[in-house]
Amino acid sequence: MGVPVAIVGATGAVGQEMIKTLIGRDFPADEIRLLASHRSAGKKVEVRGEELEIQELTHDSFEGIKIGLFSAGGSISKEFAPPAIKAGAVVVDNTSAFRMDENTPLVVPEVNPEAIAEHKGVIANPNCSTIQMVQALKPLYDISRIKRIIVSTYQAVSGAGAKAVFEMQEETKALLEGGTFERNIFPYQIAFNALPQIGQKDAFQENGYTDEEMKMVNETQKIFSDPDIRVAATTVRIPVERGHSESVNVEFENRITVDEAREALAAFPGIVVQDDPDNQVYPLASECVGKYETFVGRIREDLSCETALNMWIVSDNLLKGAALNAVQIAEKLV
Amino acid sequence: MGVPVAIVGATGAVGQEMIKTLIGRDFPADEIRLLASHRSAGKKVEVRGEELEIQELTHDSFEGIKIGLFSAGGSISKEFAPPAIKAGAVVVDNTSAFRMDENTPLVVPEVNPEAIAEHKGVIANPNCSTIQMVQALKPLYDISRIKRIIVSTYQAVSGAGAKAVFEMQEETKALLEGGTFERNIFPYQIAFNALPQIGQKDAFQENGYTDEEMKMVNETQKIFSDPDIRVAATTVRIPVERGHSESVNVEFENRITVDEAREALAAFPGIVVQDDPDNQVYPLASECVGKYETFVGRIREDLSCETALNMWIVSDNLLKGAALNAVQIAEKLV
Repeated sequence: MGVPVAIVGATGAVGQEMIKTLIGRDFPADEIRLLASHRSAGKKVEVRGEELEIQELTHDSFEGIKIGLFSAGGSISKEFAPPAIKAGAVVVDNTSAFRMDENTPLVVPEVNPEAIAEHKGVIANPNCSTIQMVQALKPLYDISRIKRIIVSTYQAVSGAGAKAVFEMQEETKALLEGGTFERNIFPYQIAFNALPQIGQKDAFQENGYTDEEMKMVNETQKIFSDPDIRVAATTVRIPVERGHSESVNVEFENRITVDEAREALAAFPGIVVQDDPDNQVYPLASECVGKYETFVGRIREDLSCETALNMWIVSDNLLKGAALNAVQIAEKLV
Repeated sequence: MGVPVAIVGATGAVGQEMIKTLIGRDFPADEIRLLASHRSAGKKVEVRGEELEIQELTHDSFEGIKIGLFSAGGSISKEFAPPAIKAGAVVVDNTSAFRMDENTPLVVPEVNPEAIAEHKGVIANPNCSTIQMVQALKPLYDISRIKRIIVSTYQAVSGAGAKAVFEMQEETKALLEGGTFERNIFPYQIAFNALPQIGQKDAFQENGYTDEEMKMVNETQKIFSDPDIRVAATTVRIPVERGHSESVNVEFENRITVDEAREALAAFPGIVVQDDPDNQVYPLASECVGKYETFVGRIREDLSCETALNMWIVSDNLLKGAALNAVQIAEKLV
């Protein structure tokens, strides 16, 4: 017997990857119900050689559904998680709506799978930039506690949705042709630029950090169940379509050598070590697209602190950073 | 009476900016002698409404020259600085050839102008990524000594020369059109990507750091005359034509508040504070092009260390990062 699954936000960039990932990993779904806004209802999507029609999301959409994968924005999750739960489904939510709710587990299956059992109807998928970082830090944390993380990100535009990808492409074309371009998504030119702002106008909190930066702080502490991990984040959007890169400096309680780190990382589920500087081998956003793994390289002892390491962590933000992690949680539920 | 100036590497990206900067700042040059390789000799460049012919660089090129601005690669500097000095010129060298030589001052005029007087014929211009960082850190260092710097860079392709800019543009076009592209400069795709490697095949040292990263360590210590400043750098090339951005975390001996930092930075020569998160105001590579200043924003207290600050530092890598800094040194010499 299979599991009936609903995807909320089936037409979005992440929703589309959720469908592909369910199929790609042979998830035992006997139904994949595609839900989206009124605007998309009636559209057809091919799934496993079958034409599936997108249905309009309503409070009655979840009859018979056992797992709901949500990725249609926080307000949609807040409104439609309760009726989904009432209908008997467990919600795996990719938005930030429930992440810091104390009754909601925040899960990266390789890091804190045990938290899943504590759910009360909703399990939250962490933010994309957090997931790949904590996944790569977990095998090191198992060797020595982490005192402090200083991270600067190089984030792909697909994290802001399919329209953002389109905007970057069109703006790039316009600039190359010497033309002009009217943008809708990003506050400034994203083509050939680096924006130290993830999120919209209201992205900045009173302490000067963006929501995205504070997610990396709060979610990391919650996932590791360790409020003593100190995190300073600078999150930056760059003109990459897909694949987040992160420059991470981690200070441990005890010294971990580069060789120990490589060994622990290579043995960890879902991590691929790409670290051979002499042959110019290191993780690249362009190479991670469509892959399930998180890639780690440029591992080196921090010259400024003997118990710290620097590393470069890359993963497909739509897969491990979103759809794959959600499907992995669903797999654990089954 | 004016000063006769020679530009070595006059046809390169930096050489071209040196000519513009000399003119733009009314440098009192009564001659600007343009020197380049045999290949470029005979080409004409318009300077102040006058056609100047590029001359072939030889050991006899420096007769009568008082200041030689060199930017044609380290081996050219090593070969041609001695004959230039013999002819009576002072060499301001933009390559890495003499930077760490103990008899050569390494100068950012706003930071350590006093070092100029110690020169023995050559004054070195620091690396582009170092210049903008130390310039922005100097007014803060004057408040409290710096213990540790953790920096991740977002560097423009023009730092690798005019051919690298062309390669990025052509590769971007090819990728947008679904075509292919054969690259010559970068080890991997630079369009829509982030390369955690600055420099060529031999960029990596035994400790896993690139030369560019170690320049940020060694040059920062030398410019501040403070070997106790600890620096950990990760230098990354991104698809930006011009303008380096840097995410910098600085730990001070004593706490400096955000307001104190803004005030000290705003009062410092060549620094512009662009830091109003509520109105989405922060430095951008796209906005710094052609400007002499270094722009600083996103200044915030480090949540992971109470004596540290995070900031975002942006400057035109061809100007303050190269040509302008060299011309400023020449101005101090006059």
